[in-house]
Parts: sequence; C-alpha cells; structure tokens
Amino acid sequence: MTKTNLDQALDYAHQTRESFLQSLKDFASIPSVSTDQSHQADIHSAAAWLAKRLEHLGMQNVAVMPTDMHPVVYAEWLQAPGKPVVLIYGHYDVQPVDPISLWQTDPFNPTSAGEYLFARGASDMKGQVVAALSALESILKSRPLPVNVKFLFEGEEEIGSPSLARWMKDHQALLKADFCLNPDAGMLAKDSPTITYGLRGLVYFELKVFGPENDMHSGMVGGVIHNPAQALAELIAAMHDANGKVTLPGFYDRVRTLSQDERAQFAQLPNTESKYLELTGVKALWGEPEFTPAERLGARPTLEINGLLSGFTEAGQKTVLPSHAMAKISCRLVPDQDPDEVDAQFRRFLTEKAPPTIRWELEKISGAPGSITNLDQPGIRALAAAQEVVWQKKPVYVREGGSIPVVGMMQSILGIESVLTGFGLPEDHIHSPNERLHLPTWYKGIDALIHFFYNL
Amino acid sequence: MTKTNLDQALDYAHQTRESFLQSLKDFASIPSVSTDQSHQADIHSAAAWLAKRLEHLGMQNVAVMPTDMHPVVYAEWLQAPGKPVVLIYGHYDVQPVDPISLWQTDPFNPTSAGEYLFARGASDMKGQVVAALSALESILKSRPLPVNVKFLFEGEEEIGSPSLARWMKDHQALLKADFCLNPDAGMLAKDSPTITYGLRGLVYFELKVFGPENDMHSGMVGGVIHNPAQALAELIAAMHDANGKVTLPGFYDRVRTLSQDERAQFAQLPNTESKYLELTGVKALWGEPEFTPAERLGARPTLEINGLLSGFTEAGQKTVLPSHAMAKISCRLVPDQDPDEVDAQFRRFLTEKAPPTIRWELEKISGAPGSITNLDQPGIRALAAAQEVVWQKKPVYVREGGSIPVVGMMQSILGIESVLTGFGLPEDHIHSPNERLHLPTWYKGIDALIHFFYNL
Repeated sequence: MTKTNLDQALDYAHQTRESFLQSLKDFASIPSVSTDQSHQADIHSAAAWLAKRLEHLGMQNVAVMPTDMHPVVYAEWLQAPGKPVVLIYGHYDVQPVDPISLWQTDPFNPTSAGEYLFARGASDMKGQVVAALSALESILKSRPLPVNVKFLFEGEEEIGSPSLARWMKDHQALLKADFCLNPDAGMLAKDSPTITYGLRGLVYFELKVFGPENDMHSGMVGGVIHNPAQALAELIAAMHDANGKVTLPGFYDRVRTLSQDERAQFAQLPNTESKYLELTGVKALWGEPEFTPAERLGARPTLEINGLLSGFTEAGQKTVLPSHAMAKISCRLVPDQDPDEVDAQFRRFLTEKAPPTIRWELEKISGAPGSITNLDQPGIRALAAAQEVVWQKKPVYVREGGSIPVVGMMQSILGIESVLTGFGLPEDHIHSPNERLHLPTWYKGIDALIHFFYNL
Repeated sequence: MTKTNLDQALDYAHQTRESFLQSLKDFASIPSVSTDQSHQADIHSAAAWLAKRLEHLGMQNVAVMPTDMHPVVYAEWLQAPGKPVVLIYGHYDVQPVDPISLWQTDPFNPTSAGEYLFARGASDMKGQVVAALSALESILKSRPLPVNVKFLFEGEEEIGSPSLARWMKDHQALLKADFCLNPDAGMLAKDSPTITYGLRGLVYFELKVFGPENDMHSGMVGGVIHNPAQALAELIAAMHDANGKVTLPGFYDRVRTLSQDERAQFAQLPNTESKYLELTGVKALWGEPEFTPAERLGARPTLEINGLLSGFTEAGQKTVLPSHAMAKISCRLVPDQDPDEVDAQFRRFLTEKAPPTIRWELEKISGAPGSITNLDQPGIRALAAAQEVVWQKKPVYVREGGSIPVVGMMQSILGIESVLTGFGLPEDHIHSPNERLHLPTWYKGIDALIHFFYNL
C-alpha cells in the first residue's frame, strides 16, 4: 500500500542521513565555477559525477550531452504508466568564490560545523540537487517510483544559461513532461515552508568608458581631459533618481501596477525592514520609498552595480589618470519587461547622457525575462500538501527577488509550468563567502520531496 | 683654460654615448617599484647600484643611509673652494608597471628601438639621474669638477616621499648647499628647452564605502539596501560641478587669482588644446572652461580618480551586491593650498554628502604642498645659458602640472631653491605602459648639464 511505501521511504531517509551528507560533500568538493574558463575540467567532473549518481540510482538513458558551452546531464525513469512525468531541473555549476580571503573554510573542502555544512554550492544548489536524488533513493530502495521522472541538470545557471534555450529547442520531444520540479528557489525562514510562484528576470551588462589612449600621469593631463573613472561614476550616479528609481528611459513602462490584494499578500510576508537590517548589517535601508522591502524585491525591477574596476587598485598610491573604467551592471526584471528592450533603453540612456569627452561600449552578457507560475496545478498542490505535513504549517506563496532564467524557458519552449521549491535560507550566504546549508532544514526538505512524489 | 676643459668634456661625452646608454640600461633593469612591498630587495639593489657608481666616479663619503622606509644615497665632492655647493637630487624608485599586458617590451629589460629606449624609469627618472652622472663623468675624465657637489638620491618619490622630510631635518648640516639641481622635471617638446619654476602639490587618498557586512546575492537585497559601488559613484559624481570645479567646501579659498601678466605668459606656451587632443587621443577636452589647458595644468588645482575597485571584475557575470567599494583619489594643489586643509575639506564633504545608508572611511596616504621657485638666482641663469647654447634657443619658463614634494621640502627645511630641469618629453608615457626616453634629446641634456656646471 502507498502508506507503507511512504513510511518505508521516510524511514530509509532518516537512517541514511550520514550517507546523503557525504554524497553532498563529494559533489560540493568539485569546483565547478561556470564563469571561469580555468574550471572547465571541473565542470565536466561535476557533470560526470551526476551521471554516475543517476546510473547508480537505476535511472535510464543517462547521458552527458554537449551544448554550445557546458554539457547537460539527462536521465529518465518512465515505468509508472498513467502517472505524470516530472522533469526534475537542477544546475551543477556554482558561483565564483572571490573574495577568497573572507572564507573561514576552504570553499571546496565541505566542512560540517554545528547545524551547518559550509561549502560553495552547499545551498545554491548542489544541496538541493542531492536532496532530490536522496528522496528518490529513499523511495527506490524498496519500491519503484510512484511517478515518471526526467532529469535536466545544466552547468550554466550562474552565468545566465546562455546555451540552454537552444539546446531545449533541439530536444523538445526528449524533454516532454507534465511539469518541472525546480528546487532552485529557497525558503523565507526555516519555519516558513515556501512556494515561489514569481521570479524576476535578469539582464547583465558590462559597461566600459574610455578616455585617453594610454594610462597617463595625472599631473600632466588631469583637469584637461575627462577622467574616465569619474565619467563612469557620473553615468552610474545618473542611473537612479533621488527616490531610487531607475532612470533608463521607459524602464517602468511595462511594470505591472500592484493591486490592493497583492500588496496585502506582500504585507503578510516576514520580509520586514528589521529583517533586512539584521541580514545585511546596514544602518538604514534604501530604495523606492512608496514600496515595502518585500514589494521592492518581489515586484519591482532594479539596476545594480555588481563590479567596478579602473586604474590603480593595489596598496599605496599611483598618480595615474586611467585610460578606461569598467562597471558590471545588472537589472532584475519583473514580468512583462523584456531583456532586449532594457538593453535598448540602456543604450538610449548612454547615448543621451554620455558626454562627448569620453567613448563608451556596452556589452549585454546575458538576458532572461521574469516569470509568474500558475498556482492552480497538480504539482503545486502536491508540494503544498507535502510541506504542510513536514512543517505542520501551510506554505507561504511568494514572488522572489532572484532570477531563474530556465523557468521562463520551460514556459515558452516546452510549454510547461515549474514547481519552485528548495530548502535554502536567506542567511545561507549564497553568492558570497562562507556559503552554508542548514542541515536540519535540508533533512526536512528530503522528507517533503518524498511526500511530494507520493502525493502526485 | 675653462674653454678647453669644457670642450674636452663635451668631446668625451659624445664619444662615450654607448657606455652611458649601457649604464642606464643596467640601472633601469632593476625593478625598484617603491609602492610594492615585494620589490623591497630591488629598492636596496637600486640604492647599491647608485652608491657603486658614485664611488666609481670618485665621489667621497658615499653612503646608503637608512630612513623610516627606503634608504637615501648620499655622496659629496667638495674640492672647489670659493665655488657654490650644488645639491644634486634624484630618485631611484619607479612607478608600478600595471597593466603589464599593455607593455610591448619587458619593462625591466630596457630595449632600444630607433631613437627611443623603452623601460620603466627610462624617463622618470633613472634616465635623468644617469644623465647627471654622465655629465659629471665627462668632466672628471680629464679635470676636477668646477663646482662642489652633494648628492641626495631617494627611493620614495613615487609614493610621495613619506620619510624624506624627517630624514632631511635630521641631516640639515650634511645637506647644506647653495641650491638644488633637480632634473625630475621635463621639457615641453624636444625643441623647447624648458625651465620649470612652479610645481603643484599632491594629496593622495583612499576612500572606502561600506554596505552590507558580506557580499550578497543582488536578487535577494538589491533595491532594498544601498549598493556601496553605486553610493561611491554618487559621491564621486558630486565631487565636481557641471563646470568641472571641485566641490570640496573651501577648496579654492587659497588659490591665487591669475594676473593678466601670468595669463599672457601661459598663452605663449605650446600647451594648446590641439596638443592635448593629439597627446591623449580624446575627442574633446574637459575642465574649467574659463581657463586654458595650460592654465588648468599650471595654476589650477584638480581632483582625480586614480583607481576604482568593487565587487566582481573578472570576465563573465556574477550577480553580487558588493559589501564595499574603493576609490583612489588625489588632488593636485597649487601654491598656498595645504594638504591637511584639503584632507579636512574632503572629510567635511563626505560628512555632508554621504547618505545614512552607507558607512565611509577616508585614509590620507600622502600629502605635499606646491611650490614656486625664485627665478632670480645663479643656478637658473647658468641653466638657461646652457640650454640656449645646446638648443640654440632661449628656454621657456613653465609652471608644471605634476608634483615634486621634495622641492617644497628643500625650501622649508633646507632653505634652498631648486633648479628644475630634465630631458623627458610629454610623450614619454611616464607612469604608463611603454615608458620611453628620446635618446637624441637625452644626449643633448648631458651636453647641457656639462655647460651648466661650467657656467656656475
């Protein structure tokens, strides 16, 4: 009986926690940093690790498949006739680790301490991938799976999934499924089971401002030509108005107005002002004053400076007037905003604002639109019920500030919705030094996924 | 007879050019970068090289003398009774070489090509030091020197000479002289013999802006807290008004108004708008519109961004909201401006302008006031006559945009004026990749220094 099967699977999961953790440590020790060419071999190691793990679970047609850049790992198990096909998505790549000096442990030597596992990727998202595989292992130990599954693990999520859309288009039949389970979203807090139904899009740029042909002696031309680092700062300063609004022309044209209902929903989230003050350690928050922090993150687009570089940056002094200055700049987009339109708005902004004293170049590095998932679907209902059993609490439904380009691709290319879950916490330091995973929450997550599969 | 001695010295100089060049190549091959701790041993090698060369010339009391940081090389030759004592100043340290990728030759493997020698320090100022030593060698080959000389070679000029003032105070008797010959200034053009009578001061800062305690995921807090890279850009943008005026409160209070005479003098310099367009390759100049480029460089203070660093700066993308952002910022000061006052003005600016959403720290790395040399002195007259003979042209008298802190120290601590010369050209790429020295001008400079010593 299903009840018995479920209990057996949960029992196995509880008894096998040490081995699940060890599996995650193995996976997280592979430095699969996708943005860094020098980690090319590690990318392939991580893909191979997953393929081996899937093979070992008894999955079929396991394949590491080439794309224009980093490979996709595919597998399937289709022996539950009449049951839905769940496409399980994950990414095996991780963020860079810089500044490495701020890590208290080796980011690729996963280290347990108290209730946490410290490692790059522990939370985002190798931990989530291993949670899904551990849930499946727990079921498969004694019984066949109660659903059909396919796997799509990519290696480019942290660089905007540049070659995934094309690969998906070329493999639409292979990827045919009823919906996608994507555990790359997180929880609002460890006692708040969370279902994410909205994600922001992302468009990422590199802006370069050029001044003199060479770096020059600041005493020989300073005050006579426009310093490109200063000119870049002036352009950046002009990208927001005094109220924190982005000034790219037309940037807000497609942004939906929040209804009273939506605002009431946001008001119930635990994302309060004091929570962000505590999380970040800043003395005062910033941003559009007419929206709450939860609204700004969930329903408003942003423009952020991700990096700055110009001239002399070592210790000491060098009186150089730099030849150029660079900024990494990205916009989080809300549904209906289009990355290419924002690219055009940025170019219009620069054409209008850049002075004749400098030259600029803008490169769009990646772009993906935002998405909102339909809540009325069996996958969401199965997940909500699973979370309620494990946490003894109904989940909260949130629109998240982050971006998962693949969710939009699943909608537009495969025509399927994504069920977004995951067991990372806001305090996990993802994309930052000392990334960690809260293990008690992670173990609950494995239980929740076991329930989820049986609820379908 | 003096005439014969002079001719013999000039003959020797012309016959020994290959050897002088080899000597410069030896000296310039030592990577004595003063701002970089890892070049500590090279600093000492460069000092030792000079001491050996002075010893070889027959100078007396040659000594490498410790200071709080990099050593001073001292020597003297005082056997011309009744003749003036000339304190010959130079620095043996050089600027860093970054960005190294833009060098077409190894900066510390001095390379001759056509009329140029390419090397870090070839022009600024190992070439100038070797020119002075070569002129002395040419005279000493057949005759004693016609003047008394002392030498002060320091190793901290490129980092603002932080320990030189104290060392000078402790050695006032040793350094007693009639005036200083300082060949660390340059020429306006290769056919314009130049005497520099005014120098700007320099105060150099590092400004840090702090946001969240750690680097964070831009999708999780972007739009909710103030991005410190953006906040730094906003502060930098506010440091100049729309007319290119520095906005630090009180910055221009002590700046002298230019007289009609001075403006007429500046108008005769070859530092025209088209010269700077050609030198830098920019499409349009920038700066205070009511002053000419020559006036802006010679008589107006500036604030320049020398470096910017924040967040992710590698190839590719990382969606980080950085925890902090840094700028290297320096001001060129005109006579009567005080570095400590400018430091206070900068702090007042930041106190007034920095928003409550971020925290800032300002470090003053070095500071030295500007200076104007009295033109009515025997050293200047001797140099002017020497240049006129060699170039068949009267020198132009200029106030230079750069800063040589030691000139102010010589005035205030030793009570002596400096005769500022040098045979570098504006196109020498000093402080930049591919620094070079124009050898035909350098050889003329050696001749001019021989004349100069005989003219005293």
